[in-house]
Amino acid sequence: MANQNQIKNDAITRREDDFAQWYTDVCKKAELMDYSSVKGFIIYRPYGYAIWEEIQNYLNKRFKQTGHQNVYMPTVIPESLLQKEKDHVEGFAPECLVANIGGGQTLEDPLIIRPTSETLFTEHYAKIISSYRDLPKLYNQWCSVVRWEKTTRPFLRGAEFLWQEGHTMHETEEEARTETLRMLEIYDDLGRDLLAIPFVKGRKTEKEKFAGALETYSIEALMPDGKALQSGTTHYFGQGFSKAFGVQFQGRDGKLNNPYQTSWGVSTRLLGAIIMVHGDDNGLVLPPYVAPIQAVVLPIAQQKPGVIPAARALYKDLEDAGIRVKLDESDKTPGWKFSEYEMKGVPVRIEIGPRDIENGVVTIAKRNDGTKITVKKEEMVATVKQLFDTMHKEMYQKAYQYLLDHVTEVHSMEELNAALEKGGYAKMMWCGDRACEDKIKELTNATARCIPFNQMEIDTVCPVCGKKAAKVVLFAKAY
Amino acid sequence: MANQNQIKNDAITRREDDFAQWYTDVCKKAELMDYSSVKGFIIYRPYGYAIWEEIQNYLNKRFKQTGHQNVYMPTVIPESLLQKEKDHVEGFAPECLVANIGGGQTLEDPLIIRPTSETLFTEHYAKIISSYRDLPKLYNQWCSVVRWEKTTRPFLRGAEFLWQEGHTMHETEEEARTETLRMLEIYDDLGRDLLAIPFVKGRKTEKEKFAGALETYSIEALMPDGKALQSGTTHYFGQGFSKAFGVQFQGRDGKLNNPYQTSWGVSTRLLGAIIMVHGDDNGLVLPPYVAPIQAVVLPIAQQKPGVIPAARALYKDLEDAGIRVKLDESDKTPGWKFSEYEMKGVPVRIEIGPRDIENGVVTIAKRNDGTKITVKKEEMVATVKQLFDTMHKEMYQKAYQYLLDHVTEVHSMEELNAALEKGGYAKMMWCGDRACEDKIKELTNATARCIPFNQMEIDTVCPVCGKKAAKVVLFAKAY
Repeated sequence: MANQNQIKNDAITRREDDFAQWYTDVCKKAELMDYSSVKGFIIYRPYGYAIWEEIQNYLNKRFKQTGHQNVYMPTVIPESLLQKEKDHVEGFAPECLVANIGGGQTLEDPLIIRPTSETLFTEHYAKIISSYRDLPKLYNQWCSVVRWEKTTRPFLRGAEFLWQEGHTMHETEEEARTETLRMLEIYDDLGRDLLAIPFVKGRKTEKEKFAGALETYSIEALMPDGKALQSGTTHYFGQGFSKAFGVQFQGRDGKLNNPYQTSWGVSTRLLGAIIMVHGDDNGLVLPPYVAPIQAVVLPIAQQKPGVIPAARALYKDLEDAGIRVKLDESDKTPGWKFSEYEMKGVPVRIEIGPRDIENGVVTIAKRNDGTKITVKKEEMVATVKQLFDTMHKEMYQKAYQYLLDHVTEVHSMEELNAALEKGGYAKMMWCGDRACEDKIKELTNATARCIPFNQMEIDTVCPVCGKKAAKVVLFAKAY
Repeated sequence: MANQNQIKNDAITRREDDFAQWYTDVCKKAELMDYSSVKGFIIYRPYGYAIWEEIQNYLNKRFKQTGHQNVYMPTVIPESLLQKEKDHVEGFAPECLVANIGGGQTLEDPLIIRPTSETLFTEHYAKIISSYRDLPKLYNQWCSVVRWEKTTRPFLRGAEFLWQEGHTMHETEEEARTETLRMLEIYDDLGRDLLAIPFVKGRKTEKEKFAGALETYSIEALMPDGKALQSGTTHYFGQGFSKAFGVQFQGRDGKLNNPYQTSWGVSTRLLGAIIMVHGDDNGLVLPPYVAPIQAVVLPIAQQKPGVIPAARALYKDLEDAGIRVKLDESDKTPGWKFSEYEMKGVPVRIEIGPRDIENGVVTIAKRNDGTKITVKKEEMVATVKQLFDTMHKEMYQKAYQYLLDHVTEVHSMEELNAALEKGGYAKMMWCGDRACEDKIKELTNATARCIPFNQMEIDTVCPVCGKKAAKVVLFAKAY
């Protein structure tokens, strides 16, 4: 037992000492992931994968409500197919994993392990769309994608990651544009309802948009180290791919036309956002609705008569109420267990010992702020449910306040530098020229995260070139 | 409209004319799948994928009840890792898809796109198992695997298919053996509860077992063309992989030991079984509990006042009762719609027209036998639920009767030939020698499907070699 306590207490790096190391420690010690022998290809361990499954459950419901259907496309894309849309292949070619040998034979047309599936979906759509009656097509796929990245970090940037990719085809430009923004709203809801993360929504600049898209929109989250994390994107393609792939439909007017296309995705990168936004020096802190284990019941002095049966009764009450609950009646010490479930970020810890039983009460500890309350046993379930709601709001509010505190309006390069130094977003008017974006990147290493929907004239000239200002942009250093 | 009726009526090949072509026709016309531009890599269309999702839902529940956890391992296996277990690599090397180039650079250690993940799981287990306290480890993964097959057919044999692969580690041999058989039972339940398919369970011969396993068990389904379809397997590995990969744990006695391992999987091949076992000359016939659309409501003479509202009310009643229901109020003709939902195998069709409304009734048609009944509107939901149960049993019973009618006891090579000619299983005593299995394969193209659990002495000698008979084996031609 002593040994195990030591293992648990060798603690993790403190955030203020080394934020990056703290992050890696949490990923490993909360048993979210492990490394495999191939760089950048991680193992999603049960606890990490279960968080992803909760995200899948939420999104699958929202996708189905909005008429989307799940499909599965091949893992491989012939090199010749990937090359059909020029901007797209230029964007992805440098990071492709290419298979040359199948069944011992060299392949004439090498196969790319899919980095994204626009080409596969569009090729399929060309075969199944012929009339306006076939539109819209609203498909989504859950899968992994492979991008040969040089610098990799668990969940944040990997050679392989899990995601969903929606690919839709529409009769009109308006409908496709509406879809692009509708899916962005669903991602925003995911942050507010499930992850307790406030996103900033906006449009990407030309420099930052997706390879092959006419417009890209994103949700951006702000991390405690002041860096932004792009957490999901939606793309409007217009007719680019549908023309390149010859997708045509007979319209209501009897004429042939090319459909208008969108795609959109979120990935296991969201796990990285959850870890960083909410975590503390004791480890992970999970928002209650996305937590695989929402409550843990810990018997205290469990060798005493009546403790284990009482703990089991609490477990059953919570389980019957639909709460994802775990009972740990292993012979590890309470101290070991406290550290373990703190590290794993379980939202609520319920303690029950001999004295509690005598008094007909239980002690409930909140992971997010460490406060404890004692309630009558009969009130436990209702209290826990109420606490989930409270904790979710507290966590969202805390993250939102941090975001508000880290948007700095700037009017000059000096102010921009100072704001980026402080961390967070620098909100600045910009002329719209790529040259100014490039210059900011060169001088500060910050990028245009997005052109937020909420526009207002805060300046008249671009602080970089002095030309007429066109748009408000949020600049930040980013993952 | 006329056009569309024609499209629907250009019918599919009749089963007795060309069973293989009938199968392909159903796969395509029921919109279960489509071909991609890479041979053997199919597209799982929404309707086909939704059947797979129902199978996933069933199995995820059963896996979780039995303590299993989902994980996700890398898509790629370094060639050097795959080679660690000798029998295993010999079995899989010929059908590997190999990636040689990543990010424009030649890879020193080529990467195999996973054909199965024993090596990845075992390598990970070596890192996370050190004590008997860490056991058992009961992991499962939902993913696709790639095997470079020369002859491919939708769902039955593909270069890529979807599956689940369970990989478990145990403290004792007994526990691992129990797991191997427990999972086989869960697969058998899946057939009986969800797919309405009776499986034969048994052990594979040495010749037919999985590469690297000590023992392999399978569920085998019998197709209407008399061929068997291996529909799922479970493997007991003993300590083979755990020794090769150095997985060790400190036992209760303080000594180091290697854990005992299992793996088990079912795949989208099950969709092929569903199509063939239940389908008819009008298309797919889906068992009600696995059907993505369990009931379709079709308004008749829908332009007449009151018909659409009445159909919508029925739809709502069914949906509220938790039935997966579709309402088709498109302007296609009733004839087109009848054919469409027959082709798609929707278990129950509910018709409502002006006369039905007048009489307060609806007409319900059963897809599996074409019978129709008329019931009072108020009784519809209860009737439909009752029908699902009846239809499921009818479909299972029909398949079971076919199976019983196609197990032929044989005592000589002549009888074996005749039984295989008739189709189905030849039940025969066998000496246990591989040479006799090889000879049967050579002479008849049949293989030992399994050594069924239900053993009885039906002969004293092996009909091939005349030596002492050891076991009852089921031989059959197979997919």
